[in-house]
Formats: sequence, C-alpha cells, structure tokens
Amino acid sequence: MKKHFLPGLCALLLGASAAFAQSVVLEDFRPSELNQPGQQYPMVNSQGYARFRVNAPQAQSVIVSLGLGGFGGTVLQKTEDGYWMGTTAGPLDEGFHYYHLTIDGGVVNDPGTNNYFGSCRWESGIEIPAHDRAFYEERDVPHGTVQEVRFWSKSQNKLLRAFVYVPPTYDSARKKQRFPVLYLQHGWGENEYAWFNQGRANLIMDNLIAEGKIEPFLVVTTYGMINDVPFGHMNEYTAEDFETVLCDELVPYIESHYKARTDKFGRAMAGLSMGGYETTIITLRRPEMFGYYGLLSGGSYSPDDIKDPKQVKGIFIGCGSKENGDAVTRSAAALRAAGINARSYVSEGTAHEFLTWRRILREMAPFLFK
Amino acid sequence: MKKHFLPGLCALLLGASAAFAQSVVLEDFRPSELNQPGQQYPMVNSQGYARFRVNAPQAQSVIVSLGLGGFGGTVLQKTEDGYWMGTTAGPLDEGFHYYHLTIDGGVVNDPGTNNYFGSCRWESGIEIPAHDRAFYEERDVPHGTVQEVRFWSKSQNKLLRAFVYVPPTYDSARKKQRFPVLYLQHGWGENEYAWFNQGRANLIMDNLIAEGKIEPFLVVTTYGMINDVPFGHMNEYTAEDFETVLCDELVPYIESHYKARTDKFGRAMAGLSMGGYETTIITLRRPEMFGYYGLLSGGSYSPDDIKDPKQVKGIFIGCGSKENGDAVTRSAAALRAAGINARSYVSEGTAHEFLTWRRILREMAPFLFK
Repeated sequence: MKKHFLPGLCALLLGASAAFAQSVVLEDFRPSELNQPGQQYPMVNSQGYARFRVNAPQAQSVIVSLGLGGFGGTVLQKTEDGYWMGTTAGPLDEGFHYYHLTIDGGVVNDPGTNNYFGSCRWESGIEIPAHDRAFYEERDVPHGTVQEVRFWSKSQNKLLRAFVYVPPTYDSARKKQRFPVLYLQHGWGENEYAWFNQGRANLIMDNLIAEGKIEPFLVVTTYGMINDVPFGHMNEYTAEDFETVLCDELVPYIESHYKARTDKFGRAMAGLSMGGYETTIITLRRPEMFGYYGLLSGGSYSPDDIKDPKQVKGIFIGCGSKENGDAVTRSAAALRAAGINARSYVSEGTAHEFLTWRRILREMAPFLFK
Repeated sequence: MKKHFLPGLCALLLGASAAFAQSVVLEDFRPSELNQPGQQYPMVNSQGYARFRVNAPQAQSVIVSLGLGGFGGTVLQKTEDGYWMGTTAGPLDEGFHYYHLTIDGGVVNDPGTNNYFGSCRWESGIEIPAHDRAFYEERDVPHGTVQEVRFWSKSQNKLLRAFVYVPPTYDSARKKQRFPVLYLQHGWGENEYAWFNQGRANLIMDNLIAEGKIEPFLVVTTYGMINDVPFGHMNEYTAEDFETVLCDELVPYIESHYKARTDKFGRAMAGLSMGGYETTIITLRRPEMFGYYGLLSGGSYSPDDIKDPKQVKGIFIGCGSKENGDAVTRSAAALRAAGINARSYVSEGTAHEFLTWRRILREMAPFLFK
C-alpha cells in the first residue's frame, strides 16, 4: 500500500481484501509435540494450521479427518516420492484434537503420532500450542505420581482399572493426614486414560500446587462407559452400572488404600460431556456421597434438582465460548439465587474440546474442598 | 485308514502324509485379548494361528507383518464386502507379538488392536494364549499399583518418566520398613511401558506375592535409549548417558520418594536384550551400586568380568530355547565354578520374545534379594 492512502481507508481495504483472499499461511511449521519419537509430521504453525505427510506410495486416496475449524477433512495430495501431503484449509483451535486417516477407504491412525482413546478407539492426536499453555506444561516443580490401580469389581465380575493422581506431598504427609478426592470422569467414547493423556490433569495439578493455588488433593479417573452408550442416545443412559462401580466399589477401594478423606465434603465428582451427565445423575441419586459437583461441557443442575441446599458446598459449571456460555453463566446464577454456592467459567475461543476442559479444571480446582 | 493296517505302518504313513499335507487349521478362532473394545479381529485359534480382517475397500494391497513362525508376512485377500482377510500360514509362538499393516505401501497399525511401543514406534500387538499363562493372568488377588513418576533430569535437562510397580502390602507396611528395588530395562526400540504393557510384570509380581513365592519388592522401568542406538550397532552403545540418568538421577529419586532399601544388596538391575547389554555395562562400571544382576536374552558375564566375587550375591541368566540355551547354561555354570552364585533358565519353545521374558522374570524374582 502506498503511503498516501488514508490510514482508515487503508485499514478498510486491507480488512476487505483479507475477508475475500486466502489468509497467508506462515511457514513456521514445527512437529506437533504429540508425535512419536523422531517423527517430523504432522506439523503445526504459529497460526494453528496443521500439515500432514503420510507414506502410502500405492494408495489412491489419503484423507485426514481434520479440516477447517476442526471439521470436515483434509484431502492429501500425492507427491513425487510417494508421500501424501496437505495442510488444513484454516487454523485449528488451540489445544488437543483427535484425528485419523482414511487410506483407500480404510480408517487407520497416522503412524506419526501417539495414540489417544476417543470415539471408542485409539485415535491419532495433534496439539496446537495454546497461548496460555504454561499451566499444563512440564515444569521443574515437584511432581506427583499417576498410579494405575486394579480393583476387583464384584458387580462386573472382572478386574477394573483406575488411575489416581497422588500429589507430591502425599508421602511425606503425617500418617493421620487425609486428602480430599476428586472423582473426575471422561466423555463419551473416551476412557480412564483421557484426563491424564489428553487432559494433562497431573501436570495441571502439579503446577497449581507449586504455585500455592490449591491445597493438594487426589484425582481419580475410571472407565465410565460400563454399558454401551450409542452416540446420541445419552438420554437413555441411566448410568446405574457405573454408579455401582464408582460408589460401591471404587470409592471404598480408594478409601481403604489411600490416605483419603471419607467424609462427603472431602469427595467431589466432576466430568466432561457425558461425564458431566453422569455426574448430575450420580450426585443427585447419592446426595450423601459427594459434597462438590463439577460439570465440564455436559449436564446441568437447576435449583429444583438440589433437594437441600446444604447437601452441596459448591457446584462449578464450565464450557467453551463456542458452546453455550450464556446457559452456563445463567445456570450458575440461578443456583446462587437459590442459596447454593455455584460458579461458572467460560473458556475463551474454544469449543467442545480438551483445552476447554484443561482450563475448567484449572479454574475449578481452587474452588473445591473449601 | 482301514483297521487291517499294522499300527506301526499306519503311524508311519500318517506321519509322512502330515509332513507333506497342510496342517488342519482348527476353526476355533477367538478375538485376541489385546484388541480394542468391540473389535473382533485379529483372532487367534487354539493352535496359535492368527487371522486378520481389515477394512480398506479401495486398497490394492494389504499385508500383515506376521507370517509363518512370526516372520515374513501374510498377504491378505480382498473379499466382496471390501474387507481384506487372511490367516497366517502356520502357528505363531505362544505369547505376545508386535506387528503392523502395510496398506498400499504405507505402514500403519491395525485399527483392531491396542498399541505397544517397539521398533521405535507404537505398533499393533497380538497375544497367543500360552498354556502356562496363569502366572501372568488377571486374578482376584491383592494387586499392587503401577505408578508413573516424573523426575527432572539435570543431565538431560528435561522431565523424564519412570514406572514403579509398588506391591500391595507397601502402604500398610511399618513406617520404617524398606523394600528392595529391581531396576528392569526394556530392549532396543522399546520404552518404559514395555515391561508392564507387553511384559505384564505387575501381574506377574502380584501373583508371585499372592502365592507366597517372593517377598515383595519394587520394580522400576525407565527409558533406556537416551541416545540413539541404530539397530545392529549395539557394540557402539556405551550407555553413558543412560548410566547417569539411572544411577545419579533415578535411583536417588526412587530412594527419596519410596520406602526403598538404599544398600547395594537391596538393589538389583536386569534387562532384556539391549537392556541386558546395558545391565552388564552399568553393573560392572558401578559395582558399588547393584548387588544382583539379571540378563534376559541379552548380554553376558564371564568370571573375569567380576573383579570381586563378593560384589554380587546373585546373577540370573535366561533366554528362550529357540535362542542360545546352551550358552546361557554354560555361562551360569562358569560363574558358579568361579564362586559366584549364578543360575540359568531356558524358556521352552520360545524365541527372542516377550513370553520368554515373562517366564524369566517369574523364575528370577524368587532368586533376588536372598
């Protein structure tokens, strides 16, 4: 633009042209942090574009399930050396995204990435670094452990698995000290790994504790889809089998194997998406068990659901700004108007995805067990 | 065969015909226990044949990397519904096997199975049930936990990961009790997950403890390939960086965070394949650190290597019968002749693979810390 243009006009013209022209894609691509060792692709640039490269020399078609805004797909083009390459048409939201490849009609994972269980299968994953990622980064602070626990379920007649985040001060705590416990559930199609692998809950907790923002507590995740829940049929999910596993088998296991508080206000339950839905069902059916409730992009409470305002010391409700932030804000306000301690949080610029839930955990943790 | 044939002749003819005829493949195929939820394929029959079924309707070629005896490959055939199917030409050895697919020249994993890190990538895996599998099965006995530990490595300037098996009696032990620790390494191309995912070390330990065959101890695994070790260049691997991480960073971390013995005869080091090689290097360079050594299909000790027979209270050497069983047996005998407590074990019918190492761990565990 020549200097004699009026700045305002210049801005208007630039704005107009940007709307109709393809955005400039910066060529500062770097390997995604979720790649397998030594794998350069997929790559991510500073704007959030993702670029893929897959070796399938005799294939006719290779499609990546991620596209503009995270939906649609990206059709890769075959290059001379037999590799297929392509870049998303637009930037992806910050944070974690599941994806897979379709090679000649067969759904497989991208061999370049680690695997993450979602949509009922181990998928590929890619991470767009978030501007506020410090709260979930690996830092040189004391770290807790994530413990894989196997507990026998009489109701399911099998050995089940849970993961327990144990904070760094746990072992040096006085023998009689007891820690609160957050039972934190995943969403539909995910499993007990989700909150630690995709969610980085352990690192979020380590960093909050190191910064003095929370008193340490345990975080427990287990598999919530005890019964098949066909996608889109959430209303039919009564969560009874899972309620038995959680309340009658896992909670007693945790309380007999860990220095865990056994009073109801030392127990919180929260979940994302379907996990939030499970939380509403189970906390309301078992008001004597949990003293704090958390909903992350899933489920809701109206004041009428809470029979006794004293049964719960705190309800935290969150979602992404690309979801229904107004509903979440109003919901918490309505609960407060009914005398219940409730708080809401809306994650800016994110949708129904893991960066939303990492941020909600960060905001919710200091709210619990007070 | 008509009844008037002489039994001997009958047997001779049957034997001859069996040698030239294709073995009868029994159609009692069942899903492999390592499949993802709801996935029917791959399947395994009672003889150890594996059958694969992959959806890739527009593909020209789908090959499975497992074949006769575990080598070669199995070329799948396209069926009418767009799925590709095939069965291995012969049975596989009992136990765990890595594999992958090649779809139109692209190496990807079979979406039917969980993932296991080997050959420097997350591969697919299949399990042929072993006749002696009870020792590594999930049973209703007290279970320990597998704990993911993050420890800051000054030498590597990054946060590293280790897994710690903590036996079921650990938490209820007297405050002053200290447990021995086995530092157990994986092979080339594997990582710190290997001994618990592929190896089932936690279940093996739980069952040995429940049967009263061992006094409980901790098992620690971490990533041994700190430096790139190109396959086939083992002789160039000096393991110095890993020695620093293990001896100067991980051992101190374990001993300051767990009720672990800190005397050298409370520390054992063992490893499979490249991990065995690392074990020989590190135990001999640091004779003051470890009091028991274990080699699983890798590395060797000659009496000349042991400067002082009193520096080690036990050396355990094992391999599969399809490897070099004689060498292992002779090696242990030579050490005993030199006044060193050594024992060998050869796993019958297995090769350089995980069932060999599960069995060696089962035999070695009661030998340690005595």
